[in-house]
Amino acid sequence: MFFTLILLQTALYFALAEHSYDIKWLDVPLDHFTFSSNKTFKLRYLVTTKHHIKGGPVLVYTGDEADIELFAKNTGFIHDVASVLDSLVVFVEHRYYGQSMPFGNQSLRTPENMKYLSTSQALADFAYVIEELRKEYFKSMISNDTFPFVALGGSYGGMLAAWLRMKYPTSVCGAVAASAPIWYFSNQVPCEKFYQKVTDVFETYGGDECVDVIKMSWKIIRNLTKEEKGRLTLSKSWSLCHNISSTEIDKLVDWLSDIYVNLAMANYPYPSKFLQPLPAFPVRVFCNKLYGANTNDTRTLLEVLNQAFQIYTNYSGQLKCHDVNSSADDSRKRAWRYQVCTELVMPLCSTDADMFENAKWDLKRYSEKCYRDVGVWPWRPDWIVQEYGGKNLRYFSNIVFSNGLMDPWSVGGVLANVSSNILAVTIPRAAHHVDLRDSDLADDNFVVQARKFHIRAIRKFLNIN
Amino acid sequence: MFFTLILLQTALYFALAEHSYDIKWLDVPLDHFTFSSNKTFKLRYLVTTKHHIKGGPVLVYTGDEADIELFAKNTGFIHDVASVLDSLVVFVEHRYYGQSMPFGNQSLRTPENMKYLSTSQALADFAYVIEELRKEYFKSMISNDTFPFVALGGSYGGMLAAWLRMKYPTSVCGAVAASAPIWYFSNQVPCEKFYQKVTDVFETYGGDECVDVIKMSWKIIRNLTKEEKGRLTLSKSWSLCHNISSTEIDKLVDWLSDIYVNLAMANYPYPSKFLQPLPAFPVRVFCNKLYGANTNDTRTLLEVLNQAFQIYTNYSGQLKCHDVNSSADDSRKRAWRYQVCTELVMPLCSTDADMFENAKWDLKRYSEKCYRDVGVWPWRPDWIVQEYGGKNLRYFSNIVFSNGLMDPWSVGGVLANVSSNILAVTIPRAAHHVDLRDSDLADDNFVVQARKFHIRAIRKFLNIN
Repeated sequence: MFFTLILLQTALYFALAEHSYDIKWLDVPLDHFTFSSNKTFKLRYLVTTKHHIKGGPVLVYTGDEADIELFAKNTGFIHDVASVLDSLVVFVEHRYYGQSMPFGNQSLRTPENMKYLSTSQALADFAYVIEELRKEYFKSMISNDTFPFVALGGSYGGMLAAWLRMKYPTSVCGAVAASAPIWYFSNQVPCEKFYQKVTDVFETYGGDECVDVIKMSWKIIRNLTKEEKGRLTLSKSWSLCHNISSTEIDKLVDWLSDIYVNLAMANYPYPSKFLQPLPAFPVRVFCNKLYGANTNDTRTLLEVLNQAFQIYTNYSGQLKCHDVNSSADDSRKRAWRYQVCTELVMPLCSTDADMFENAKWDLKRYSEKCYRDVGVWPWRPDWIVQEYGGKNLRYFSNIVFSNGLMDPWSVGGVLANVSSNILAVTIPRAAHHVDLRDSDLADDNFVVQARKFHIRAIRKFLNIN
Repeated sequence: MFFTLILLQTALYFALAEHSYDIKWLDVPLDHFTFSSNKTFKLRYLVTTKHHIKGGPVLVYTGDEADIELFAKNTGFIHDVASVLDSLVVFVEHRYYGQSMPFGNQSLRTPENMKYLSTSQALADFAYVIEELRKEYFKSMISNDTFPFVALGGSYGGMLAAWLRMKYPTSVCGAVAASAPIWYFSNQVPCEKFYQKVTDVFETYGGDECVDVIKMSWKIIRNLTKEEKGRLTLSKSWSLCHNISSTEIDKLVDWLSDIYVNLAMANYPYPSKFLQPLPAFPVRVFCNKLYGANTNDTRTLLEVLNQAFQIYTNYSGQLKCHDVNSSADDSRKRAWRYQVCTELVMPLCSTDADMFENAKWDLKRYSEKCYRDVGVWPWRPDWIVQEYGGKNLRYFSNIVFSNGLMDPWSVGGVLANVSSNILAVTIPRAAHHVDLRDSDLADDNFVVQARKFHIRAIRKFLNIN
C-alpha cells in the first residue's frame, strides 16, 4: 500500500513536469552487415540525466516510426521508473525518421536510398548506441559483467524493444514491450482480428448504434460518390481540400477507416496529444455526435459524420480542409510505407463481423500498391517470422509484453505468459500503450498495477531488490 | 558399458564407410537485410538421408571457409549421431566458398563484389535453408512447435553453429561448437596465447630440442637471406618455385609459421587428409626429422627443416616446388582474407615465450596489409564482440563448446561451463575438432567420452531420452 501511495505521488509530480533532455548525435555505420565500406551517418538520441545517479541503470527507449521527440513527450512512465531506480533515460531515434536521415533530404527519395531501412539495421543501431553509452557511463566495468541496460518501447518501438532483447541479449538485460503486435505477421493471426477489435472498441465506448451507423455509411458513401454531383456534395460537406474524383473513392474510404482506427488506438481516459490533439475517450465523443441524428438521410449522415470525425482531424479547430492524399506527401509515412511494404507486412481484412467496408486480404494487390507508392514490394513475407522466431518465444528471456485489451493492436500481441521470464500483462480497458504514458489521475487501477508490474520486472532484469 | 560397445562398433563401421550425399541448391537472398532488391544466388547444400527416419531430427553442419565437401568428408561423427538418432544430415556451404558464389567467378574480384560476405549474412543463409528443410520435412507441424534442428560445426563453422543458436534460437534448438575460438576477438584473449599453445604442442609431441631448433632458425634464416647468395642457397635448398627476393622474406617467415600452426592443428593420432595428407601425430614426425642433426651448421639446418616441413607440404611426394606466394592466388584464401580483414580480426603476436619469430600485434600494420591484399580494412574491430555478446554467454542456452587442449585455437574457446546449458567439454590431448571426425581406433578415451557427451547433449536439446 505504501508503495502505491509513493507511486501515485510520483505520478502526480510527473504529470505536471516537462521531461527535458539533451540532444546527442552518434556516427553509426550505414550498413552494419557490410564491411567493404566505412560509411556512417548521424543518428540522434536524447538523454535525460535528471534522475541518474552514477552506476544506476540505463533505460533505453527504442524509437518508433516517427520523430523521437514525439515519443519522448509521450512516454512519461520511463521517467517514473528512472526516479525510482536512479536511471539514465535515453530515447534513440529510428534511422530514416525524425532527423536521423542517412542521406539528408534525399533519404526517402528512392528505394535505393531507403535500402538501409530495416529492423535489423535499426536493432544494430540501438546496440551500437548502447555500446557507446557503456563506454561513457560504465568505463570501469569488465566485459563479462551484465551491463544494466533495459529496453522499453511501445507499438513498433515495443516490437523493437523485444527483438533487441532477443537478438542482443548481452546489450540489454531485459525489455518492456508495450502494445507490440509482434505476431501480426504472416498467418499467425487471422487477418480479420484487427478491424474486429476496432469495432469492439466502438461498440464498448460508443454503443451499437454508433457501430451500425458507420457500418451502414460505406454503402451510402459509395453510392453517393458514383456521380459527379454526389462527389461534389461530399467534398463540400466534408471540407475536402479538393473536389474528390471518381478514382479517389478507395483513398477516401481508407482515410476514413484510418481515422476510426486511430480513434480506437488513442482512446485514452484523458485528453492527449499523441496522434492528434484529442479529448478524453475520443471514441465516446465521436459516437455521441452520431446519436439521435436521422442518419437515413444522406445529407444528415454526411454532416454528423463530418462533425464526428473532426474530433480526430480538427479538435484544435485550426484545420482549413481535409486532404485525403495527405499521406503521400508525408515523409514519415513514406518511410513507414517502405517498411510495411518490405519487412512489416501485417495482413488486414474486414468482414461482415466488423463495422468496416468488406475487404479481403490480397497480397498481390497489396504488393502492386506498394510498388506504385514506394517502388518496392514484399517479396519475403515470411521473413519477420523466420528472423524473430514467430510464436516460438520460449527460448528467449526477460521480456514483458503488455497489451491494453481495448487496443486494436492487442490482437497481434503476446497475451499470455510464455515462460517464467517471457511474461504477459493485459490491461482490460486500456488503449494503445497507455502504460508507457505519463501517469494520470484518470488511469484505472489496472493501468497502475501494470506500471508497478513493469517496475518489478525491470528490477528483476537488473538483479536489484 | 553397453552403449560404449555399440558406439565403437558404429564407429568402426563408419571409419570404413564413405559418407555419400545428394547435392542440392537453394536460391537465397543476396542481402538478407535489405529489401529494396530481390536478388538471389544459388547456395549449395549436401543432404544425407541414409539414417533418416521420417520425423527424425536434422543435423545441420554450418559450413566453414572452404568447399563444403571438404567438411562433409571430415566430419564423420555427424553420421554416428545420425545413425543413433535417425537423423537427416545436412551440410550447408558458406557463401563465397566452394561453389556458392554470388557473382560466379567474379565473386572475389573486388571488395564491392565481396560486400555480402559476412557472418550475419551466412547465419541468415543457414536459417533460410533450415526454413526450407522445415517446409520439406515437417509440413504437418505447427509454427510454435520446436523443430528438431541441431547445428554442428568445427572451427569457424563451430563459431557459426554457436552464433546460429544465439541469433536464431528458434531455428536450431541447440548447437555443438567444436574448436570454436569465439573469444579470440578484440582484447578478450592476450594476443600471445595462440603461438604459445602451438609451441606447447611442439614441446609436448616433439620435445624441447625441436622447439629450440625452430626458435633458433628464424635468426639464421634472416641472416642468410640478407644477401643474394644466401637467398639463392635457401631457394634451392627448399625447392622454392622461384628464387626468393629480399622483399619476400617476411612472406617466407609467415609461410613457414603457418606450416607449424597447421601441423599443430592437424596433429591427429592417425593419418588424415584434412588440411593436407599427413601421417599420424605429424608434429612428432616433423620433430623426429630434426633430432641429432648438427643444426649449428646453416646448410644442415636448412636441409633438415626442409625434410621436416615436407611432412606437411609434400607427404604425398607429388609436389614439384614450394610457392611462398600460393595464398595470393587461392580464391578460398582470398575470401577468408576478406573476412579476417573485416569482421574476424583475431589479434596474434609472438614473444620470447614461444618458438616463433617475435612479432607485436599492430592493428595499423595489419590494416595496411589488408588494404593491399583485398582492398578492405578492419574499421570496426569490436564488432564481433558487440554482435555476439563476447564473454557474456549466460543469456544463451543449449550450446556445447568442445575444445582439444592441444589445439592452438583452444586458447580462444569456451573452456569452462558458463551455465547449466552453456557447457564446455575439454579433451586433454586432442587437436583441432578431432571429436567431429570419423571415429578411429587411435582415439583415446577422452575423445570417445566427448562424443558420447555430444550425443547426450543433442538428445537433451531435442527433448528425447
